[in-house]
Amino acid sequence: MSSGANMHITVRLQFAKNVASFSDIATAIGQAGGDIVGIDVISSSKTHTVRDITVSVLDSKHADVVVDTLRKTSGVKVIHVSDRTFLMHIGGKIEVKSKIPIKTRDDLARVYTPGVARICTAIAEDPTKAYSLTIKRNTVAVISDGTAVLGLGDVGPYAAMPVMEGKAMLFKQLAGVDAFPICLDTKDTDEIVQIVKAIAPAFGGINLEDIAAPRCFEIEERLKQELDIPVFHDDQHGTAVVLLAGLLNALKIVDKKIENIKVVLTGIGAAGIACTKILLAAGVKNIIGVDRQGAIHRGVQYDNPYWNEYANMTNPENISGSLSDVIAGADVFIGVSAPGILTVEDVKKMAKDPIVFAMANPVPEIDPEVAEPYVRVMATGRSDYPNQINNVLCFPGIFRGALDCRAIEINEEMKLAAAEAIASVVTDEELSKHTLSRACSTIKWQKKCAKPS
Amino acid sequence: MSSGANMHITVRLQFAKNVASFSDIATAIGQAGGDIVGIDVISSSKTHTVRDITVSVLDSKHADVVVDTLRKTSGVKVIHVSDRTFLMHIGGKIEVKSKIPIKTRDDLARVYTPGVARICTAIAEDPTKAYSLTIKRNTVAVISDGTAVLGLGDVGPYAAMPVMEGKAMLFKQLAGVDAFPICLDTKDTDEIVQIVKAIAPAFGGINLEDIAAPRCFEIEERLKQELDIPVFHDDQHGTAVVLLAGLLNALKIVDKKIENIKVVLTGIGAAGIACTKILLAAGVKNIIGVDRQGAIHRGVQYDNPYWNEYANMTNPENISGSLSDVIAGADVFIGVSAPGILTVEDVKKMAKDPIVFAMANPVPEIDPEVAEPYVRVMATGRSDYPNQINNVLCFPGIFRGALDCRAIEINEEMKLAAAEAIASVVTDEELSKHTLSRACSTIKWQKKCAKPS
Repeated sequence: MSSGANMHITVRLQFAKNVASFSDIATAIGQAGGDIVGIDVISSSKTHTVRDITVSVLDSKHADVVVDTLRKTSGVKVIHVSDRTFLMHIGGKIEVKSKIPIKTRDDLARVYTPGVARICTAIAEDPTKAYSLTIKRNTVAVISDGTAVLGLGDVGPYAAMPVMEGKAMLFKQLAGVDAFPICLDTKDTDEIVQIVKAIAPAFGGINLEDIAAPRCFEIEERLKQELDIPVFHDDQHGTAVVLLAGLLNALKIVDKKIENIKVVLTGIGAAGIACTKILLAAGVKNIIGVDRQGAIHRGVQYDNPYWNEYANMTNPENISGSLSDVIAGADVFIGVSAPGILTVEDVKKMAKDPIVFAMANPVPEIDPEVAEPYVRVMATGRSDYPNQINNVLCFPGIFRGALDCRAIEINEEMKLAAAEAIASVVTDEELSKHTLSRACSTIKWQKKCAKPS
Repeated sequence: MSSGANMHITVRLQFAKNVASFSDIATAIGQAGGDIVGIDVISSSKTHTVRDITVSVLDSKHADVVVDTLRKTSGVKVIHVSDRTFLMHIGGKIEVKSKIPIKTRDDLARVYTPGVARICTAIAEDPTKAYSLTIKRNTVAVISDGTAVLGLGDVGPYAAMPVMEGKAMLFKQLAGVDAFPICLDTKDTDEIVQIVKAIAPAFGGINLEDIAAPRCFEIEERLKQELDIPVFHDDQHGTAVVLLAGLLNALKIVDKKIENIKVVLTGIGAAGIACTKILLAAGVKNIIGVDRQGAIHRGVQYDNPYWNEYANMTNPENISGSLSDVIAGADVFIGVSAPGILTVEDVKKMAKDPIVFAMANPVPEIDPEVAEPYVRVMATGRSDYPNQINNVLCFPGIFRGALDCRAIEINEEMKLAAAEAIASVVTDEELSKHTLSRACSTIKWQKKCAKPS
């Protein structure tokens, strides 16, 4: 599988005009398997030209091959090689800005001492005024302990920051929400709960992110009970909402009713349990969860208490066995687990018109290109394939709505409504297996959004 | 004393053209003692005009008098009255913005999944890369528990936010630093230390603000020891740096040497102790601290352990007595205490060319207008009087410098250097008793600043 847009390099080249032409360079890059996607002229003299050539490559190794080929091309000098993804991250991706400039000493006396004292006094007398006189009404904290970052696992709070900054960008661009990333240098449940409660005054909502299961369940539950602002674990509920949105549309394509389908879901962690709960709430009757020990079923005492609870609410026929066993006759496969665990043979055993949502990140449960001939609807979690099931379609809008109506929580009804709203963005005419849920398709549903493309 | 620019109101008026003219309105406002500082035409028809008139008034009562006068003016209808300070705070004063727009799906795949995973991996392998690939290198947390906000005291974390947002604005405008306010819903020293440590990964510096003494000392000391980024309690050290800057210039005006002066300082709290320490470090030999119990001196066992320590490092002649007693012969009065505690009689007892820095906020230890005939150099903490001694002159620049050189602390040498740098902004020619330390005069010293006016 290609890593697609994930890997672009920008190569700054100087070439002698009488020795090498641009077409020589293009040929060299093409022969090395690279794809030129951008050209910028940096400088030009009578004898030499300097250009930045941006090339799409498969991976780091392939990048080295392309650069080596250029180095061997006569008349060409490689000045330096930059990776566009790294370049976009230099210095971080977000900034804090004043909404109003301080132009005069008068302005200073209003936004700061002494004038600001009157604002402080007004809020001290009536703390609900924090919603009108501070950033609270439009600001969300994006909180992570860095223990379950993407598919990378426990990379720690420093390495989690680029993801949280990315979320803050999307919050602002898609829904006008000011979000600030707080990455915590602790993995202790009690401490995380205590910290989030303590920092809550500035914020109108708490978005929990990339916190490992089962700790994330308790953290979310306790914060929901103890705070008077919405608390939303995006990996659970954001994923669940977008999955349901995609499934509602996929079922229209294959003309099946949600109450009649058999669903097999792999990865019974935070996201898997939340996906299961929203599917049950939406009317699915037959859903079987599979983890490393096989299908979760009653009659086994699992060490993980959430699995025992899971067994009680799913698997009506109490089937046991491996993924390959239970996938037989399934209408829908949902993966929130690990790369490559679903085989073509498994897909062939599914019912007619198989729906496969392989959402492991960054490498899906089955390569979409391999699966495609055998499935009716294929979706992944990636933005560089069609039908992206990614919580980016949900979190900006659901918080926009919650902040606008000053909701004190984001409850099950709000999540189901969000899923239906996201699904409805794709019209019946547009419904085809490739336009199921498009990246950023929620923009029609979100208020105040800036259309990204 | 007038509250100056602190109080402006904007009155939206409709007036019938054939009944009232604008000069009638201007006359009415003038007779009520108001001063028109702005006029905006909102709409105009053949018969009526609607205008927003911004009026400078003394205080809320005076505002009522002005509005009542307008209500009684024939042909004039008052539509509504807004207070400019409140208007500037609606929705808060800062926002979080993306540095780069997400224009295409390709951009999304770089700043978010799947591309961001490579950035996370790079930081997980080498956490110092957080300085180049996240917001850390330019971002400061402004932390308060809301217990010592301006002169208002313990107003709590919600009411502290407008001050912290104001600081974030100044950080950005004066020094290009991204600062984010975190107001804590706890007053527990251990908990505050633990929280700040836990949230530190995203930040390149910690600015503690408006935390009551003596808790603030322990919090700062422990965080300094346990974190590898600069921790700076602005109320202590920011105030001390700017005070010293102002004093260095004031002493040039009166032609006295710092080692020969007698200083009386009122308010032996966080700021008072920090001011005393920087003055001692700068060469002052004779400094007497005064609090509610009179001059702090040796031979008394104070309940407050910081006062016992204070007695040991100050008051070389071990003088006791009230402020009125010890002020006799003093060259310099420094107040970081309470409104109105310094009388004209006290000032008259001071040595020739008295220097009075009355920095209590928002109401100084002596009304500058009352004191002026008797002092040679007068300064306050307010931005609406000349010679403002306010930590806004220090904190943006000192953090700019610390972030740029990736300092792990802000030490005594850095503070003395900052005071000298701030003082040097005012040239010898400019030195007069009114240009001692001008608001925003640090901009020459600060890098990358946006000149505010």
